[in-house]
Amino acid sequence: MAVKNSSMILSASVMHGLGMHLGAWAARDGEVTDYLRPEMYLQIARTAEAGKLHAIFLADGMTNAEAGTERPCGSMDPVTILALMAAVTNRIGLVGTASTTYNQPYDLARRFATLDHLTRGRAGWNSVATFLPAVASMFGGGTLPDHESRYARADEFIDVTLKLWDSWEDDALVGDKANKLFAHAGKVHEINHAGEYFSVRGPLPFARPPQGRPVIFQAGASPEGRDQAAKYADVVFTAQHLLEGGVEFRSDMRRRAQSYGRHPDQIKILPGILPVLGATEADAWRRKDMMDEALGLGPELLKLARRVGLDVEVLKLDEPFPAHLLGPDEAFSGSIGFRRTLVNLAVKEKLTVRQLLARYGGGHQQIVGTPEQVADIMATWLEAGGADGFNLMVDMLPSGFDDVVGMLVPELQRRGMFHREYEHATLRENLGLGEGPFPTR
Amino acid sequence: MAVKNSSMILSASVMHGLGMHLGAWAARDGEVTDYLRPEMYLQIARTAEAGKLHAIFLADGMTNAEAGTERPCGSMDPVTILALMAAVTNRIGLVGTASTTYNQPYDLARRFATLDHLTRGRAGWNSVATFLPAVASMFGGGTLPDHESRYARADEFIDVTLKLWDSWEDDALVGDKANKLFAHAGKVHEINHAGEYFSVRGPLPFARPPQGRPVIFQAGASPEGRDQAAKYADVVFTAQHLLEGGVEFRSDMRRRAQSYGRHPDQIKILPGILPVLGATEADAWRRKDMMDEALGLGPELLKLARRVGLDVEVLKLDEPFPAHLLGPDEAFSGSIGFRRTLVNLAVKEKLTVRQLLARYGGGHQQIVGTPEQVADIMATWLEAGGADGFNLMVDMLPSGFDDVVGMLVPELQRRGMFHREYEHATLRENLGLGEGPFPTR
Repeated sequence: MAVKNSSMILSASVMHGLGMHLGAWAARDGEVTDYLRPEMYLQIARTAEAGKLHAIFLADGMTNAEAGTERPCGSMDPVTILALMAAVTNRIGLVGTASTTYNQPYDLARRFATLDHLTRGRAGWNSVATFLPAVASMFGGGTLPDHESRYARADEFIDVTLKLWDSWEDDALVGDKANKLFAHAGKVHEINHAGEYFSVRGPLPFARPPQGRPVIFQAGASPEGRDQAAKYADVVFTAQHLLEGGVEFRSDMRRRAQSYGRHPDQIKILPGILPVLGATEADAWRRKDMMDEALGLGPELLKLARRVGLDVEVLKLDEPFPAHLLGPDEAFSGSIGFRRTLVNLAVKEKLTVRQLLARYGGGHQQIVGTPEQVADIMATWLEAGGADGFNLMVDMLPSGFDDVVGMLVPELQRRGMFHREYEHATLRENLGLGEGPFPTR
Repeated sequence: MAVKNSSMILSASVMHGLGMHLGAWAARDGEVTDYLRPEMYLQIARTAEAGKLHAIFLADGMTNAEAGTERPCGSMDPVTILALMAAVTNRIGLVGTASTTYNQPYDLARRFATLDHLTRGRAGWNSVATFLPAVASMFGGGTLPDHESRYARADEFIDVTLKLWDSWEDDALVGDKANKLFAHAGKVHEINHAGEYFSVRGPLPFARPPQGRPVIFQAGASPEGRDQAAKYADVVFTAQHLLEGGVEFRSDMRRRAQSYGRHPDQIKILPGILPVLGATEADAWRRKDMMDEALGLGPELLKLARRVGLDVEVLKLDEPFPAHLLGPDEAFSGSIGFRRTLVNLAVKEKLTVRQLLARYGGGHQQIVGTPEQVADIMATWLEAGGADGFNLMVDMLPSGFDDVVGMLVPELQRRGMFHREYEHATLRENLGLGEGPFPTR
């Protein structure tokens, strides 16, 4: 089950405003307004494509509360940013997060199909079931639906979206001028979906996107989330700190996918990694210290507290992580995946809160070191079957992208672990998920 | 009330797939798939900016039914297309249509604020209350709400959107590294809107867009539509075939705006014009005939029938337009604006159906002729106070943009009727709507 090294997948993320480290805005050169400017996103897109990354992944901070801190810093609309990036790139995949809890499938299917056309087959949708109560107050003011009904809705949402993407047969659009035939009406199908959450007649108002179906990313870690990913996801983004957890997760996901009649290689598992890079280990630590010192550890500590569901007051930097104070998972409304992997790490390695903070990278495995050190860890995970590749969290924007592309990618290529050129035109093909458009159902 | 000529506003539209003329896809060079390709939109954007047009205006064909014909040709998502265009332009305004009937204000406000940031202040929202029953079947399957409640919802929708755009004070984002202050939390305000249609707490998750408020376009022609435009719209897009109708409309809109305490110059009226251009009149007619002959007049006839609310069977090409068969406006579910102006034109000028078709340009005033002839008519409307400028329908894509920019714009500039350079950075300023960001409330 080890992954053939050269086929390793590498994507990189724009998570929070100016970098995954909460101190990034204060530690970096440049104005705070950079996170609102087209120049930064265009630069990131060009850099990432020069580094042959498979995809840029945009998180979605729908509200100010999203970042898990007190600063009012959510994100701009992901698909809109990706469409800007589309104009200056040709091969890299562009993946945007969008919620199934507060969207309509007709709208979302149409928007990602548009992005897929405008990128000539490079669009991906990271499907999330919103877990932040603050979001509910922007859409009607009710309370957030419970975990089970959010996942039931998400299931139906994805199903409707796929039906809409399949609503035009691949050869429905003809444009036969001699016969005055724009499209074969008989090959454009209503979907007539009538379910518990949605009633959608369809079809989409324009021809099928180049990939047939834009690539579906998902990041659920709960049993419902894993099951949904096994059914629908092409790529699963996961938080894993311990190799054994990563191996267990990937095996479980492959097994679940098989139980839905899929080939296990059709689901790709990407753990998140946050590399803080330097030419030497000391350089890397200088970068880390600079980010830590810009605001102090307060914001990162608060975010950790929220990730695991503890009051920040009980987290003492130089005392052991107080796992005994945790309530049950069932009473926790945040992301189960982050919580479990962080708690397991702290307990298994008997970490103090400060040690946990140095490892947790905003929720993901953080590696402060040289490109060689990061590549070593990646190789270990790939060889053990704990990953098909990695989704990199980028510490500071845009310099973290420069480091990934200028330091880490060449090291991976030198080892034969990472491709030197895009082999295909579409994201789906470059991810090894099959050739040509996904067949209509 | 005549408009100072050099301040004339000119925008141009991408309405239906491959041009406003329904035969455009068959008459033009190139593949039918061009309407799905980034290359065409990038080319249009560059051409329109080279011509110093104030804005590109994207209609929204949300379903296949939208074009008013049997061919399954709706449009891709407008904001996504505009964000692509943003990457290759610097000065032109980018205006997208989006419905208040089937969106949520938090989403829409965030998306257009994103576009405004990514364009550095060049975004516009054309607010429409969807009138096509087919759209309802994509969003829950109920029937379309009636005219009155669509407008009541639209009113509240726009109000919430403006509150969200105002939710960050202009100086709320500071990025003061020394004092570790990302933003003044006290200058970021919840809006706590609780109305009949929406409950939205706010604020938006990122700093106020460069224009403060993206420019609002509106195209309502009914009494409710006019009133809403008078309250909220910066620019009103209107279908007017007769100069007296245009003068009446503009005077009425200015008067209504005043009744809401606004200066009448703060609302700009843009009638639609569809120019079919040629170096000689014969050349222009050759272009028109080529488009008419590509599919025959059937599709345009069917669209005309729907625009006025008649069965297509009662429209005989060489008989007078049968106005006596029309039902009352109240029983008509389509756009009142198109209906009234077309019927008035046909009745007043005693046109046959064929003559009406030659004038109607998909609903708007069509002028087949030389740049001089089009400029003459524009000058007449501007001098009479029937327009602040024009929103051009483009007959075929992308060649119609080449004709507008290569033939019409130079003629307008030669006469001193149109600017030779963008004077300001933002769309709002270039439209003469004031300097700097719109003040928060």
